[in-house]
Amino acid sequence: MTDITMIRAAADRIKGKARVTPLLSSPFLDDIAGRRLWLKPECLQHTGSFKFRGAWSAISALSDTDRKRGVIAFSSGNHAQGVALAAARHGISAVIIMPSDAPAIKIANTRALGAEVVLYDRATENRDDVAAKYNESRNLNLIKPFDNPYVVAGQGTIGLEIAAQAAKEGVTDAAVLVPCGGGGLTSGVAIALAADAPDMRVHPCEPEGFDDVARSLASGKIETNPAATGSICDSIITAAPGELTFPLLQRHCTAPVIVTDQECLRAMALAFDRLKVVIEPGGAAALAGALFHGDVLTGNNVIVVASGGNVDRDMFQTALETTP
Amino acid sequence: MTDITMIRAAADRIKGKARVTPLLSSPFLDDIAGRRLWLKPECLQHTGSFKFRGAWSAISALSDTDRKRGVIAFSSGNHAQGVALAAARHGISAVIIMPSDAPAIKIANTRALGAEVVLYDRATENRDDVAAKYNESRNLNLIKPFDNPYVVAGQGTIGLEIAAQAAKEGVTDAAVLVPCGGGGLTSGVAIALAADAPDMRVHPCEPEGFDDVARSLASGKIETNPAATGSICDSIITAAPGELTFPLLQRHCTAPVIVTDQECLRAMALAFDRLKVVIEPGGAAALAGALFHGDVLTGNNVIVVASGGNVDRDMFQTALETTP
Repeated sequence: MTDITMIRAAADRIKGKARVTPLLSSPFLDDIAGRRLWLKPECLQHTGSFKFRGAWSAISALSDTDRKRGVIAFSSGNHAQGVALAAARHGISAVIIMPSDAPAIKIANTRALGAEVVLYDRATENRDDVAAKYNESRNLNLIKPFDNPYVVAGQGTIGLEIAAQAAKEGVTDAAVLVPCGGGGLTSGVAIALAADAPDMRVHPCEPEGFDDVARSLASGKIETNPAATGSICDSIITAAPGELTFPLLQRHCTAPVIVTDQECLRAMALAFDRLKVVIEPGGAAALAGALFHGDVLTGNNVIVVASGGNVDRDMFQTALETTP
Repeated sequence: MTDITMIRAAADRIKGKARVTPLLSSPFLDDIAGRRLWLKPECLQHTGSFKFRGAWSAISALSDTDRKRGVIAFSSGNHAQGVALAAARHGISAVIIMPSDAPAIKIANTRALGAEVVLYDRATENRDDVAAKYNESRNLNLIKPFDNPYVVAGQGTIGLEIAAQAAKEGVTDAAVLVPCGGGGLTSGVAIALAADAPDMRVHPCEPEGFDDVARSLASGKIETNPAATGSICDSIITAAPGELTFPLLQRHCTAPVIVTDQECLRAMALAFDRLKVVIEPGGAAALAGALFHGDVLTGNNVIVVASGGNVDRDMFQTALETTP
C-alpha cells in the first residue's frame, strides 16, 4: 500500500527526470473563483500529462533483472504515452495494447515515443487474452494505470511539490481539487498532502454521469458507472475506483465535486485566456470545480491540478468558440 | 548601460516576485528542428509575457521617494499589463497611456490590474503631449518599454535562468533564439548568457518586413521599418532598435533570423500540440526560427524564448485551423 515513505522514495527516483511544474495564478481567475486560486499544470509534464510520473516511478522501482525484460500496458490515452517515454528513457522495450479504433494520432504518438503498439479489435477480442497471448514467452512487467502502489507513489510527487510550492507563497491551508478517474492521482496527492500540508483538503472532481468515486465514497463500497462513454472528459471516465486506490480515497479525501462537460470547456477557455496553458477536458475538471462550484469548498485558497493537455485541435476550438 | 552586475541585482529584486518559468521540450519538436530544442515559456509569466520582469526591475530600482509618486508608461500591449501589475504589487499608482482604438479587452485588462488608463486619439493627438500634459503636476516616473537599463536588466534575468536550467540538462553550447522588437529582451538575455553561458549564441528573430534589427546590425546604424503595421506579430513590430539596446545587440548577438507570419502561426499550433502552451504570434517568432530556419543555426542544441501568450481566441483558432 502506498504511503508517504514510498512517495518520497519515488520523488528521489524521479528527480531530474520528470518536470517540476510551477504553480500558476491570475487575479482574473481569483475573481471568478471568489478566493485565491493556483493551478498546477501537469499538462506541461513530459508527454502532456501526469502519467509520466507514475510510469517512471513504477519502472524505476523494478529490479534490474525484471526491468530488462521490458514492460507492457493497456491504454489508448495518456498512460500509453507516459509508459512509452519512461520505458524509452530507461532503455527498455514497451508494449502497449491499444484498441484498433483508437485515434490514429494517439497510436502514432505512442509508436513515435518508441513503444511497440499491439492493436486489438474491441468487438471481437478480449484485451487480456490478447495481452496474455502476446506476453506468453516474454514475461513483461505489467504497468497498471492506477492500481499499482508505485504508480500511485509517482503521482503523489505532485502533492509533495504542491505542499512545498504553496508554502513558499505562504499558503498552508487550501482546498485542493484533483481530476479523478481511477483515483491514482487523487490518492497519491492526498497521501502526500496529509503528510506535508495537513491543513489541505483534497476533493476528487468528476464529470456528471461518471461520478463513480463520489458514489463509492457515499455508499462505502466500489460503485461503477452505468456507461463507458458519453463525456468529453475521456481521460477520467474510468469505470470505477481501483481496489488499491479506493481505501486511500476513503481515508484521505473529502467532498467530491461534480462538473459538467460544458463547465470543463469553459475552464479550458479561461485557462487559455488567463494562464496560457492548454488543458484537456478531463484535465480541466478540477479548475471547473474551483471556478463554478466554489460553494462546496471552504477557506480562502484553492489549488487545482490540471492533469493533462492532450486535447485535439477541434475540441480545443470548440472550447474557445462556444464559451464566454 | 546594463551589464551583468545590474542583471544579477535585478534577479535579487525579482526573486519570489516573477515566476521562474521552466524549460519545456518534446521529442516531436526535436525531430522537426533537427536538433534538441528547449522552449522557455515566458507566456506563463505574470500578465502573460516577459514584460513583467522588466517592469518589476525598473520599479523596484526606484528610490522609495521617487517610487511613491507612481509610474507612467505608453503601451497598448504587454508592457502596459506588466507595468500595471508590477506597480499594483508595489502598492503604487500606474498611469498607462493607450490609444483609444486599442482592443477593448486590453484596456479592460490593464484597468483590472489596477492601472489608471488614459486614452488618446492617435489621429488628432500626440502621445507625448498627452502624457506631458497629464503628468504636469504629478512628476510620475516614466517606465520606457526597452530603452531603460533597469528594464533591460529585468529581461536579462531570463538569460540567467536559461544558463542555469540548461546546465542542469548538461547543455552549455546552444543557439538561443529570441523574439526581437525594441531589443530589450534580446539584449538582456544576451548579456546574461555572455557571462553565464559564453558558448551560447544569441540570434534575434523578427517578422518579415519588420526586420529593423537585422538591417541595423548589417548597416551598423539604427534602421527603421518602412511600415508600422502589417504583421500579425504585433508584440514585436517596434519601429527600430533602441538607442540603449542597439549597441548591446551589436556587441552580443549573431545572425538574425527572419520568419513569416505563416511560420509563426504554424509554430503556435505545434506548441499547442506538443508543449501545451499558448504563444502569441510575435512570441512564436523564435520557435518558428528554430523549427523552419535551422539551416542558419549551428550546433546540436537550440533554446528558444516564447516571449508572450497574449493572443485573442480568433487568432489562435486561425493558427489551429490553417496550419499542418
